Amino acid sequence: MSSETPQTWDQIRSLLSKDATAEEIEEYLEALDPAELVRAVYRLNPDEQRFLLIAVSPEKAAELIEELPDTHAADLIDDMPAREAAAIVEEMASDERADLLAEMEQREAEAILEHLDEEDAEEARRLISYPPDTAGGLMMTEFAVYPMSATIREVVEDVTTREADYSFLTVHYVYVVIRKHRLKGVLRLRDMVFADPDARIGDIARPAASVRPEATLVELDEFFDENDIAAVPVVDERGFLLGIVRRRAVLESLADKAESDSLKSAGIVGGEELRSMPVILRSRRRLGWLSINIVLNIIAASVIALYQDTLSAVIALAVFLPIVSDMSGCSGNQAVAVSMRELTLGATVPRDLLRVWGKEVSVGVINGLTLGVLLAVAAWAWKGSPMLGVVVGAALALNTVIAVSIGGTVPLALRRLGVDPAVASGPVLTTVTDMCGFFLVLSLASLALPLL
Amino acid sequence: MSSETPQTWDQIRSLLSKDATAEEIEEYLEALDPAELVRAVYRLNPDEQRFLLIAVSPEKAAELIEELPDTHAADLIDDMPAREAAAIVEEMASDERADLLAEMEQREAEAILEHLDEEDAEEARRLISYPPDTAGGLMMTEFAVYPMSATIREVVEDVTTREADYSFLTVHYVYVVIRKHRLKGVLRLRDMVFADPDARIGDIARPAASVRPEATLVELDEFFDENDIAAVPVVDERGFLLGIVRRRAVLESLADKAESDSLKSAGIVGGEELRSMPVILRSRRRLGWLSINIVLNIIAASVIALYQDTLSAVIALAVFLPIVSDMSGCSGNQAVAVSMRELTLGATVPRDLLRVWGKEVSVGVINGLTLGVLLAVAAWAWKGSPMLGVVVGAALALNTVIAVSIGGTVPLALRRLGVDPAVASGPVLTTVTDMCGFFLVLSLASLALPLL
Repeated sequence: MSSETPQTWDQIRSLLSKDATAEEIEEYLEALDPAELVRAVYRLNPDEQRFLLIAVSPEKAAELIEELPDTHAADLIDDMPAREAAAIVEEMASDERADLLAEMEQREAEAILEHLDEEDAEEARRLISYPPDTAGGLMMTEFAVYPMSATIREVVEDVTTREADYSFLTVHYVYVVIRKHRLKGVLRLRDMVFADPDARIGDIARPAASVRPEATLVELDEFFDENDIAAVPVVDERGFLLGIVRRRAVLESLADKAESDSLKSAGIVGGEELRSMPVILRSRRRLGWLSINIVLNIIAASVIALYQDTLSAVIALAVFLPIVSDMSGCSGNQAVAVSMRELTLGATVPRDLLRVWGKEVSVGVINGLTLGVLLAVAAWAWKGSPMLGVVVGAALALNTVIAVSIGGTVPLALRRLGVDPAVASGPVLTTVTDMCGFFLVLSLASLALPLL
Repeated sequence: MSSETPQTWDQIRSLLSKDATAEEIEEYLEALDPAELVRAVYRLNPDEQRFLLIAVSPEKAAELIEELPDTHAADLIDDMPAREAAAIVEEMASDERADLLAEMEQREAEAILEHLDEEDAEEARRLISYPPDTAGGLMMTEFAVYPMSATIREVVEDVTTREADYSFLTVHYVYVVIRKHRLKGVLRLRDMVFADPDARIGDIARPAASVRPEATLVELDEFFDENDIAAVPVVDERGFLLGIVRRRAVLESLADKAESDSLKSAGIVGGEELRSMPVILRSRRRLGWLSINIVLNIIAASVIALYQDTLSAVIALAVFLPIVSDMSGCSGNQAVAVSMRELTLGATVPRDLLRVWGKEVSVGVINGLTLGVLLAVAAWAWKGSPMLGVVVGAALALNTVIAVSIGGTVPLALRRLGVDPAVASGPVLTTVTDMCGFFLVLSLASLALPLL
């Protein structure tokens, strides 16, 4: 995998090691193909990444940081001197800044906030105080707001002079308020293009659809499905304008959530891993989840120990124990995936538990019988014992029904209990289906022992 | 889970069954909370959903269709009379229309296209011809384009009169072309707000960043990370403007892809399942994947049959076979998840295979030793045989290294072979780690048999 030309990340390393100026490094980064830049940044280890962020200008560092998933970005910023971290954080848009700080330890975040100017710090504290996946947690506070009495001409002139303040935002909307805070309406930029410059904005603004700070990610997604606008204002119960949520922030959060759920369900739980992180950290995070699983696995397998006599009598059963438990696990995982998806889509809510169970049982019976017959025939053909076929086939059929019942309903039950279903569904499912699988094969075999 | 007030979906059913007018039904739907509407639509079975789409106006039907994931929407439209389907499809934005038609059988899509007007049909055929997750496949053809010589005043007047044509698009940009097609620049709406009405757009347009139709989803995501704009023009090698890709379309595709990958890796492969689909369809789709898995499982477990004598001699080993294979599967899945994520982020490309393998081996050795020692101690404590502990502990340690090596590299290898890693990584991993796990436990036990 080595090549003759020096790799991008090696070039960056060498620029860093010979103390190149911020301009030289930035010039090199700008010239890279964006995909190559991303790959290079991920290839640097966290210390080098931190060194790079400090070596370039805070603006460029903020840009690089925004390329990284929030959890990685927080890990990097966490271990940087607070003053350097604050300079970078200051350059970020308010919503992205708050997301990043919310991922950090409170003490570390506070150390950075102390280096920001008072107003920014207070605003960041306010944004962090909202739960992350709600309108409050996703909103940004850079928006353009004017009183009802302002004219189009005044607004256009003001927006033009203050353009730098709005640089984060391609200003699509101007919000109209009374008494400084209370949202009365909204004006799209295009409305201003087509309007009389002397018109008062209060007269031509249209009523603004808005959301409450507690609106969830799913509700916001619904909102933007219904309303083809780029940002929605967030108002409190008094109608005061608190901030705006960009459609983009909602879509990005949804994609992050889908991805992080899929990582968690595969056992990457302690934080999102990149292979450029130190081995010890990667290994420790993975082990946390694995050590819980090995205990659950031992508990499940101990069922086998209870039936050693049966197993000794019919040693062929040992071949079928992992087949029955693995196959039921597969069926159960399918049911988990469908439930997780229906929860995300809003097609299912936790109180649908009984309906979901009914729907799963019907699929479970069909698939259980099909797989059971398949396995029974395989066992019969292999050992010439039809009764062995009946035992393992029946065990698989029954355990498939159990597995899909658990797989379909456990995510809903965990959601209702406030436990993250992406993390806990898998281990709960496998432990129960393993235990039941071993128990069914061996207890049915005990009953049928004289015939085996 | 029953409640006293009739459920939303029952109300919709009763409106449909008593032949309510389109207006009555739409009025009822409009009054619903959006989350409730989504849940109700998902609760109807596909025939009822189809009936609902035909009962309301094509505009409303197109709106409802856009709420559903493309694959579900395609399933619904597929089985509808072509004329009714065409009326709905006609109301959709060109990019969403093309996505939907691309999900359908070619013959069915063609039947619908024949009912569209010539121009729309040809445009749709052109859009469908691009691979789905590329700029060509994601682009829309509704955009505003003017020659260099047009003045701001002319453009503003024309946009105003033709506003209905652009109704899908919150017109943020006006594209400037020469010789009808060749992209020369772009003008933001805000530029027009602040410009002299008599200026020629050719003089104030700025150069437009653009992408080629073959740009991938990851490249588009990078592009929008770098450029804070709402849409990017797509041009061919001659510089001709073909369409525009909205940032929103890119983010939505990424979220869909993350979700569909996570479904596939859990064994929902034949198509995205909803519990409102008929039992037979759900069960058939799930069985397709399960029947391949049961064959792989039987192959893996047949290793156990080769060592029946060893197993008979030390029956306690039967308890540890599923523990070793399951735990290695868990470790391997973690590596799969990290590789899938790094592929998505662009942090890893298939040619990084050797590096990934090296990184996984180092984690595998640490975690394998830790878990191996844990299991060895458990085995020793349970059976009082230190040698049994050594056998199962060593097997688990070795198999963990094998599992993470396979788990980390298989997704990259599959991607290079053009096979979808989300579907195939899991089965490949489990089959190999099961076989190796059984083989290691039993062959080490055979060697140590005199001491056990």
